[in-house]
Amino acid sequence: MKQVIDTLRANRDQALNEVIDLVRIPSISPGLPHPEAITEAANWLERRLKNAGMDEVRQLVSGEYNPVVWGRKHISDDLQTVLFYGHYDVMPPDPLDEWTSAPFEPEVRDGKIYGRGTADDKGQALMHINAVETYLKVKGTLPVNVLFVIEGEEEQGSEGLEELLDSHRDLFAADVAVISDSPFFSSDCPSVCYGLRGIAAAEIRVEGPSTDLHSGNYGGAIANPIEFLARILNDLKDRDGRIEIEGFYDDVLELSPDERKGFAKLPFDDTAFCRDLGAPAPYGEENYSTLERIWARPSLEVNGVTGGFGGEGTKTIVPSSATAKISMRLVPNQNPDHILELLESHIRNIAPPEVRVSVTLGHGGQPFLAPIDDPFVRSAYAAMEQAFEGHVHYIRDGASIPIVASLASKLGATCLLLGIDVPEGRIHGPNEMLIVDNYHRGTEMIAHLLELL
Amino acid sequence: MKQVIDTLRANRDQALNEVIDLVRIPSISPGLPHPEAITEAANWLERRLKNAGMDEVRQLVSGEYNPVVWGRKHISDDLQTVLFYGHYDVMPPDPLDEWTSAPFEPEVRDGKIYGRGTADDKGQALMHINAVETYLKVKGTLPVNVLFVIEGEEEQGSEGLEELLDSHRDLFAADVAVISDSPFFSSDCPSVCYGLRGIAAAEIRVEGPSTDLHSGNYGGAIANPIEFLARILNDLKDRDGRIEIEGFYDDVLELSPDERKGFAKLPFDDTAFCRDLGAPAPYGEENYSTLERIWARPSLEVNGVTGGFGGEGTKTIVPSSATAKISMRLVPNQNPDHILELLESHIRNIAPPEVRVSVTLGHGGQPFLAPIDDPFVRSAYAAMEQAFEGHVHYIRDGASIPIVASLASKLGATCLLLGIDVPEGRIHGPNEMLIVDNYHRGTEMIAHLLELL
Repeated sequence: MKQVIDTLRANRDQALNEVIDLVRIPSISPGLPHPEAITEAANWLERRLKNAGMDEVRQLVSGEYNPVVWGRKHISDDLQTVLFYGHYDVMPPDPLDEWTSAPFEPEVRDGKIYGRGTADDKGQALMHINAVETYLKVKGTLPVNVLFVIEGEEEQGSEGLEELLDSHRDLFAADVAVISDSPFFSSDCPSVCYGLRGIAAAEIRVEGPSTDLHSGNYGGAIANPIEFLARILNDLKDRDGRIEIEGFYDDVLELSPDERKGFAKLPFDDTAFCRDLGAPAPYGEENYSTLERIWARPSLEVNGVTGGFGGEGTKTIVPSSATAKISMRLVPNQNPDHILELLESHIRNIAPPEVRVSVTLGHGGQPFLAPIDDPFVRSAYAAMEQAFEGHVHYIRDGASIPIVASLASKLGATCLLLGIDVPEGRIHGPNEMLIVDNYHRGTEMIAHLLELL
Repeated sequence: MKQVIDTLRANRDQALNEVIDLVRIPSISPGLPHPEAITEAANWLERRLKNAGMDEVRQLVSGEYNPVVWGRKHISDDLQTVLFYGHYDVMPPDPLDEWTSAPFEPEVRDGKIYGRGTADDKGQALMHINAVETYLKVKGTLPVNVLFVIEGEEEQGSEGLEELLDSHRDLFAADVAVISDSPFFSSDCPSVCYGLRGIAAAEIRVEGPSTDLHSGNYGGAIANPIEFLARILNDLKDRDGRIEIEGFYDDVLELSPDERKGFAKLPFDDTAFCRDLGAPAPYGEENYSTLERIWARPSLEVNGVTGGFGGEGTKTIVPSSATAKISMRLVPNQNPDHILELLESHIRNIAPPEVRVSVTLGHGGQPFLAPIDDPFVRSAYAAMEQAFEGHVHYIRDGASIPIVASLASKLGATCLLLGIDVPEGRIHGPNEMLIVDNYHRGTEMIAHLLELL
């Protein structure tokens, strides 16, 4: 193993140049302004995977979607298969005038490489390739079968890959999926992310009179849809933010004492959190810390509300209707469809007879969890610990990454979120950057992981 | 008196022709599309008041506002002065294609005269003039001093007249003001309106984080301004619609048993009321009927609410802010300024510390009441009873007519709302009409009133 690591270290300059080469290709996906750049990036990766020693490399295309670059090295049917996921598409670089160096002319300054896609996700995808290639070249074989899946549409919803996962499931069969597309907890806190929240969205509409009414002629004698909507929203949560939908928490997997202890050790300060957000005070479900509330507790948020007159000045009406858009973040083992059913029946139960209340159910997404006592998760932890020579943290994330949930549910693979970018890396913003040392250590982490799995 | 009435009856055709002449002038005020028609209508009325025997007739102009046609017949310093209020401006006639006959070519069909301004308010203004003129011609004098105030800006807020009431109060000094610009309770229920609600408006704004936040990364750990606004709105009223602002009802003048008995006799049906509005059920403060709620109980309505994402689809955010516009309808003896203070301090008391809550106080307008046992009101009732030969009802109106409150408060005059248009007269809509018989009887009513005051 020492030889693998030594070789990786000897070839660091070349590995960094590869990031520069790939980032130079402006493979923006949202809006598709450079379709030829998408093709160029996919071709670049196809060649790169071939050079890395894959048995078989293909570009898989579903419909009009950007190609998925797919590569396989099959060692033995007796070995487990590791799928390495990444994406070569990037976000548009606007606003251009805020970049210090041009977004598609990568530049290294102060140990950081700047450019659109350095962190999200070209650098992290190359980290996988270089580790596997070097391991294979040094040792002549691999301790696992590997699959590379590098898609071109992550920034606009991964729909092409989702279709391929359904239509060509055999090409993606894997025991473990390694996804490096997420940040450390903080730049000095290497972390393994083992859980994500799911989602369930809905819209509540309250209708009263068939048109807006003059509040002088009707005010006080007819139910006001905005006020009745406000009641319904109030009846969804108690004053501490605990959700009052019957059965809502029934399936929630509680945090273990170890998990809570681990979260509590992370450098996190409520005061700084609120100051950064410009919010007056923290708020949320009693007896849980802010990180626990975001990572491991379900939430319900009203995302938008509209009703009546919203212009300048005054218009004294009793409005005809009011609407609220809500979305819930779900945690393991909640099921989005079941939660939406509970929401709908809760609202049906509390709907007052003086108005008409309707609920439109929206999309749902599964939560994700790879428990920290899972052997694969333990291996990932150990690999990161070896590569980064410091204390590694177990973290979760409050957001949803639909492709992770899909890889887990469609393939039955254990997903390992081993991202090495940092919160200040400004992915999607100007001056996106990747810490060069993280990139090199991340490559070693993948090599260790191959050994440990 | 019989001779006055006989003369009025003999001249009915001529009186109707005057309505036709005046309605032909398209003196639209909102948007001022015909400034020359405003001048023409004002000049027409100036001539008409001179012919009616006024001592002095003037066009009063404040700033850029349309002229107020003012006329006076002073009989004696020992007599009371009656101010007759009306307006010669009209609403635009759109949608034009829904009119059976052209809006400015008045036509009599089935005992109704159709045209923009027939009911609102040219016909009713002419009713005053014809009654006073005939009384004066037949009897050679008047039992009261009279003042005519016919403005040209009622449809856009009466601001010119309001300014003149302040700057030239001596020209408007009166003991009683007769305002004929409102409908009967229904076409077969002649009615004297003796009370109007006032108004007080405000905007409540709740601010949380300084920008919209991703609900995955923050949902459940930060106060959501929409939800906190919903709480505040909930804390303004109980579930029956009773307002929970401390001290809100302290000054409310309760209805007398006679008033309640009178309202209960009016032909009003909750089921039909809801059906017409398209609302599922009646709603409002317990122990009050719908008419009582609208006419004599204060109300608080949310007129509009905005916050977060209002577009198509889903945007999973914790919004940065949310705003509600509210307005309250006030009843005698509530004071708008005091009520706005109570609202502000109530909201300050219930504002949760996790968000920033601000209240912007808006405009206020006084409620109006001329008690039914007031001698002037009794005279108005008797005059209407004589002219319409049927049971006359005392009614109130839930809306605010700012000029009525101003005439009452600025001049200290008792205001009599003696309108004779009908709810189906479609003022402001296409095919506006005035019932010809109501016009003629209304003229007789004014003559009786002169005698009775």
